[in-house]
Amino acid sequence: MEGRREIEVVTERNAGGGVRTEPRRRDAEVLDAAAKVFHEHGYADASVRDVADELGILKGSLYHYIDSKEDLLFRLLMEVHAKVAEIRAAVEAEADLTPIQRLHRYVFRHVIYTAEHLPRVSVYHHDVEQLSEDRKKKILRERHDHERYVEGLIREAQEAGEAEAGLDPTPNTRFIFGAFIWTYRWYQPAGRLSIETIAQECADFIVRGVGGDPSGVPALADES
Amino acid sequence: MEGRREIEVVTERNAGGGVRTEPRRRDAEVLDAAAKVFHEHGYADASVRDVADELGILKGSLYHYIDSKEDLLFRLLMEVHAKVAEIRAAVEAEADLTPIQRLHRYVFRHVIYTAEHLPRVSVYHHDVEQLSEDRKKKILRERHDHERYVEGLIREAQEAGEAEAGLDPTPNTRFIFGAFIWTYRWYQPAGRLSIETIAQECADFIVRGVGGDPSGVPALADES
Repeated sequence: MEGRREIEVVTERNAGGGVRTEPRRRDAEVLDAAAKVFHEHGYADASVRDVADELGILKGSLYHYIDSKEDLLFRLLMEVHAKVAEIRAAVEAEADLTPIQRLHRYVFRHVIYTAEHLPRVSVYHHDVEQLSEDRKKKILRERHDHERYVEGLIREAQEAGEAEAGLDPTPNTRFIFGAFIWTYRWYQPAGRLSIETIAQECADFIVRGVGGDPSGVPALADES
Repeated sequence: MEGRREIEVVTERNAGGGVRTEPRRRDAEVLDAAAKVFHEHGYADASVRDVADELGILKGSLYHYIDSKEDLLFRLLMEVHAKVAEIRAAVEAEADLTPIQRLHRYVFRHVIYTAEHLPRVSVYHHDVEQLSEDRKKKILRERHDHERYVEGLIREAQEAGEAEAGLDPTPNTRFIFGAFIWTYRWYQPAGRLSIETIAQECADFIVRGVGGDPSGVPALADES
């Protein structure tokens, strides 16, 4: 066990109300490790010990943080949804965007997120079925909520005369998700194109796909 | 073992040259059963016995046909590619279609195929990694070939002035595959929209996505 460090734990009141022992600053680190291990071994074949090994901590230390392997999966998937909610908030925070421009921004930011978080996005799409019924329902409800958001943008764009009036927003929402989600299956960090170029091409493709004009979308302010 | 029937076998010279014992008429039936079992149990957890049970035959009878579970998977994936090759051939057989119209047809037919073969398309996308290296390479080479076909259509459409001249055909090909492949993740046979409507909306979305006009695509002749 040489070289392993004890995970830092603090006692705090968590969002659910009860007092529990929980690490604060290592959340991201634990989820990164879980994503990597689940992605490489497959969730079904991975163990809590594998995740602890990846972190270089004792398995027992990880159990301060979670009760089961499924807890790790659930937290990981909830975190993906939290990030997507941040994407929506960032899109909505930009003043003066039309519906089609908001759709462009949403896709652009989503592709960047996907490319920068390939292991967890991959786990998200492959392993939701492994959750218990209640938790699976919660994830699928969140997913449905994101789909409704995009469908709403298409409807608004249609009403504003920015999108093809005759298309059905429901299947088109699915095509949109397919086009940008699929990035996680083929994106190669060492490839010819930058993430930004791919995100831009994808957002342009999708905006044109619903009959919109991507040429009028203002450039995204540099956030770095 | 009551109620099981012996699979019909005949000796014939197969495409590979050697004489082997092989069922002729049951190919589709065996692959249907394998697709269903791999889809429902997961390839890793499924056994040759499960496939034999699904067919209502003895496991030994199935071994007249294959040497291993992996043979079933490989045949299944090769069959998917054979069907996609048929789609291409059907698209190319239609006289007088422009490149963008060929793209529309290819997507339309692909969505119909996907919706009508959900289990094997799902296995195709989930389990290619389970193949041995040589076989995986063969499948990935075929896949790459289909991608190049679509990329070629985009380039032709650009040259013909039918598609957005400024877009990069490589990532746009990936967006196209994502948009129509994803159908297998959400399509519900009992849903509000017919397969044909979804296929039409998808082909329209994709053609617009590369800057084309779907309104000029001639209706597909009734093939039923």
